[in-house]
Amino acid sequence: MSTRIGRLAVIGVGLIGGSFALDLKRLGLVDEVVGAGRSRANLELALERGLIDVMVEDAISAVVHADLVLLALPVGAMSLLFRVIGPVLPPTCILTDAGSTKQDVIAAARTGLGEKIGQFVPGHPIAGAETSGAAAARTGLYQGRHCILTPLPENRPQDVDRVEALWAACGARVERLEPGMHDTIFAAVSHLPHLASFALMEDLAARPEAPVYFRYAGAGFRDFTRIAGSHPEMWRDITLANRGALLTELDAYIAKLRELRGLIQAGDGTGLEELFARARAARVNWNKARNE
Amino acid sequence: MSTRIGRLAVIGVGLIGGSFALDLKRLGLVDEVVGAGRSRANLELALERGLIDVMVEDAISAVVHADLVLLALPVGAMSLLFRVIGPVLPPTCILTDAGSTKQDVIAAARTGLGEKIGQFVPGHPIAGAETSGAAAARTGLYQGRHCILTPLPENRPQDVDRVEALWAACGARVERLEPGMHDTIFAAVSHLPHLASFALMEDLAARPEAPVYFRYAGAGFRDFTRIAGSHPEMWRDITLANRGALLTELDAYIAKLRELRGLIQAGDGTGLEELFARARAARVNWNKARNE
Repeated sequence: MSTRIGRLAVIGVGLIGGSFALDLKRLGLVDEVVGAGRSRANLELALERGLIDVMVEDAISAVVHADLVLLALPVGAMSLLFRVIGPVLPPTCILTDAGSTKQDVIAAARTGLGEKIGQFVPGHPIAGAETSGAAAARTGLYQGRHCILTPLPENRPQDVDRVEALWAACGARVERLEPGMHDTIFAAVSHLPHLASFALMEDLAARPEAPVYFRYAGAGFRDFTRIAGSHPEMWRDITLANRGALLTELDAYIAKLRELRGLIQAGDGTGLEELFARARAARVNWNKARNE
Repeated sequence: MSTRIGRLAVIGVGLIGGSFALDLKRLGLVDEVVGAGRSRANLELALERGLIDVMVEDAISAVVHADLVLLALPVGAMSLLFRVIGPVLPPTCILTDAGSTKQDVIAAARTGLGEKIGQFVPGHPIAGAETSGAAAARTGLYQGRHCILTPLPENRPQDVDRVEALWAACGARVERLEPGMHDTIFAAVSHLPHLASFALMEDLAARPEAPVYFRYAGAGFRDFTRIAGSHPEMWRDITLANRGALLTELDAYIAKLRELRGLIQAGDGTGLEELFARARAARVNWNKARNE
């Protein structure tokens, strides 16, 4: 199986799409990269930075002669996109995506692609950051990062293998998961922390005394709130797309905060220390495991 | 006013106390450092690492010939300590602390020190980390960090200036705040984020599927939960000591999470995006201001 591709179309040339294109170009695994997207200024920057070779006006022009298409837009924009490109998707072209949620993207793909659904290999590279756009793209972004594929029963195994090989070439550790399991896991370890960070920042920033408070915020606050700098539209879409799992996670988190509140109210030092110690042990073990 | 001191006693030679001693020794601002604390093994390591010159068995022996005493233990341990050292504190000795809460420490100092309360200059260097103990101490820890003093009406101005000069010599940006204001501010920007991080880690770690979940946790999770690796006893004490302000903060945070939950439940994409955008703007502005 060859990992080489002729023409790669990237729809949404931001941090994720741009970095993927850049790595494949650098590795000589692609002949030409065509970029499309919603912001002309962003595409011009992508061209200038060499992330893409050609910019086109619309998704149809990008897809029509492509061998592989990567959709790297906020998940809320994908539904329309599937419907637009479905009719013109060449029969030998593999379509993949980088959406942070998978069940809703797959549902949208089924609707938009119809009988061509087997050409769509759903994916999710875990390499988000609080930066975005073509300006943020860089080589090596995926080195050592997870990339999850959630293949469909209709996929040809060799197409899934090909998408896997491309991400692996970028340095990603590729794994396969069932789409529902993917969404449940990421609601807990990614989407919930983002909401919790946004909420804390909003809670403090809305107060009249915020400027004084922020003056004294230190390194703990800096790290805790880093992800509150994430892209609002992207996170709006993820939140709505993974709404069911996220509501479950939010409820569990609020319940845990209320439990903590109860311990404080009762002055239960032993209970607090035990809870903190369990959390710390879990954090230390997690960090040890990921550095091994 | 000379910043030089003869004999410095550090009670609790961990990250905070050990790093303070190390910097003053490196700067030649202290003749001798005496260390005391609760763990003999930690004191031996402090001696071996050159954080202290002498280790003694108890706080009384450390204080009795000291010119300056730094208390750098969890705030819950300070009450007893003030009562123990109060009677033997030499009349010319300045006593200061590094506790993360100030009103409760001051109340404990008033009880334990009695008429010697004027010798106590309350302080709080903002340089905590998820590491602790003598092993974590290092030079330069305070470089560019805030250090808050919350002086008492009974303090001699020259004593406050002297403590300020020592922290400034370590590179800290020293500021003065009223104790109640200090506790209110730090409940919001430090204590609440710590509780929120501990709670999230505990929420996830308690589940049977935690090992699978943690496998896919990425950089956002890493940063959000870094402070969940903090010292359980220290945070038990801070939480109880600043209980009133912290309950207020927890309630506001839970209310904000419930507001977010309501937006998700209602599928209010505009409301979500606006909230995320406000949070992001506040985070970006904060980060810009602190790097200026």
